[in-house]
Amino acid sequence: MSEEEFKSVSIIGVGLIGGSLALALKEKKIVSRIIGYGRDEGRLKEALKLGIIDDFTISLKDAALSELIVLATPLGIFEKIAKEISPFLKVDSIVIDVGSVKKYVVDTMENILPKQVHFVATHPIAGSDKTGYEHARSDLFKGARIIITPTEKTNKTALDKITKMWQKLGSSVEYMSAEEHDKIYALMSHLPHLISFCLVNTVEEIDKNLIKYAGSGFKDTTRIAKSSPDVWKDIFLMNRDNILKMLFVFIDKIEEIKQLISQDYSENKIIEFIMKAKKLREEID
Amino acid sequence: MSEEEFKSVSIIGVGLIGGSLALALKEKKIVSRIIGYGRDEGRLKEALKLGIIDDFTISLKDAALSELIVLATPLGIFEKIAKEISPFLKVDSIVIDVGSVKKYVVDTMENILPKQVHFVATHPIAGSDKTGYEHARSDLFKGARIIITPTEKTNKTALDKITKMWQKLGSSVEYMSAEEHDKIYALMSHLPHLISFCLVNTVEEIDKNLIKYAGSGFKDTTRIAKSSPDVWKDIFLMNRDNILKMLFVFIDKIEEIKQLISQDYSENKIIEFIMKAKKLREEID
Repeated sequence: MSEEEFKSVSIIGVGLIGGSLALALKEKKIVSRIIGYGRDEGRLKEALKLGIIDDFTISLKDAALSELIVLATPLGIFEKIAKEISPFLKVDSIVIDVGSVKKYVVDTMENILPKQVHFVATHPIAGSDKTGYEHARSDLFKGARIIITPTEKTNKTALDKITKMWQKLGSSVEYMSAEEHDKIYALMSHLPHLISFCLVNTVEEIDKNLIKYAGSGFKDTTRIAKSSPDVWKDIFLMNRDNILKMLFVFIDKIEEIKQLISQDYSENKIIEFIMKAKKLREEID
Repeated sequence: MSEEEFKSVSIIGVGLIGGSLALALKEKKIVSRIIGYGRDEGRLKEALKLGIIDDFTISLKDAALSELIVLATPLGIFEKIAKEISPFLKVDSIVIDVGSVKKYVVDTMENILPKQVHFVATHPIAGSDKTGYEHARSDLFKGARIIITPTEKTNKTALDKITKMWQKLGSSVEYMSAEEHDKIYALMSHLPHLISFCLVNTVEEIDKNLIKYAGSGFKDTTRIAKSSPDVWKDIFLMNRDNILKMLFVFIDKIEEIKQLISQDYSENKIIEFIMKAKKLREEID
């Protein structure tokens, strides 16, 4: 009856990730009560009606009173939220985030949050181009990789508790430094999003009516171009340096293939270029 | 019993497209006998055993004797094949191709094939990163767009017959000039493939071990990087000028977003950039 890890959890930002976490925590009976925080009361009422949350508030002060507070908004407002909740956070409460950039978040949170509160930075590698709690699923994190980026300041008990929480949801947890995380995901996630936006905007620039000729290749390659502008604006700005480094290498590859297709007698080198990509890509099927 | 449009069809290159066309033509009873041509006798025997073809030959002379000859190999060997089959083609037989580039093919074929043979250039917008007759499906063309690029030299009867053939397979046929086709697909298909190869090779360059961190976004964006090197080498070289033009605009877009994320106070412009892509991409869901 009372095996719950947390009496109450506040989800700050009840979107796809926040909503899915709410559903998963309830399904696994890890929490007895979930409070949703948001700015749009109408949408919170809808989420309540759908049973995603048990209660809601539009006051950050109220949201701050739970044992676990989950930051699941776009990254850009983490700092503001942290400042607003700080005076009300209870001793030994845990704050986690689910943002896609970690160095900025860790630095900001460790700087702002009071010492008697424990911050654990997490990044679930789950998500979708779909946004909003309407698409929330209790199994979103099942089988997903969760990157946690502890620092020497991270409280071990809180770290263990959050690690176990994600594991109970069926996720596989991996620790690394925030710096390493940000490099890896600049390459494996942020760069592909950036490229995908640019590819669609290339069509937009040339002739947007041609979009109707999209086949399955174009559709797959640009599925992530439907992602949230608010979320991605923040990721691009907050992981700027890493993304620019990866972009530099990508542009280099573009120049390489451009040279190859511009010249004659380059057949074998083009095949080699494509074969290299094909082989590496086939490793992840 | 004898409603077939063609007594015999030769499929030159029994891969995904050739094999699927064979299956579809038989299912719709458009042909009584399908002959597969290829260089690898072992694979042809397998295709025969799977019931994809009714007979096979490794002699282009034999393959040339059908009423309909379908070129379904990589583009690069069309010219060689056309020259080899030309002396044996029967009067009023029809030759079609299913290649992804049309101007080069139309020019080459109209130049090489004898006058009493009718060439119709077609491009089914169907396919997959999967290759080989093992993945052939009789419904591959159902609902697919088929671009046909007639010229003033195209025989009207043959054009009608081929148009109806594709329509019977459930495809929707659209006519346009070979030049227009090559511009549109440089943008909507060839550029995305090129980008996808470059994205995977960026990972290869930085650290191929990071491929394991691929999430669903990376996987979708690079699915087409698994495509056939032989097929794509030819497409890149034979539609070179159009692809380079489209690539120029894409690089411009990359530079635009690079500038935006490099500077401060660019939040709104980044959102605008992403929103533009998101909106256009959502049109094709």
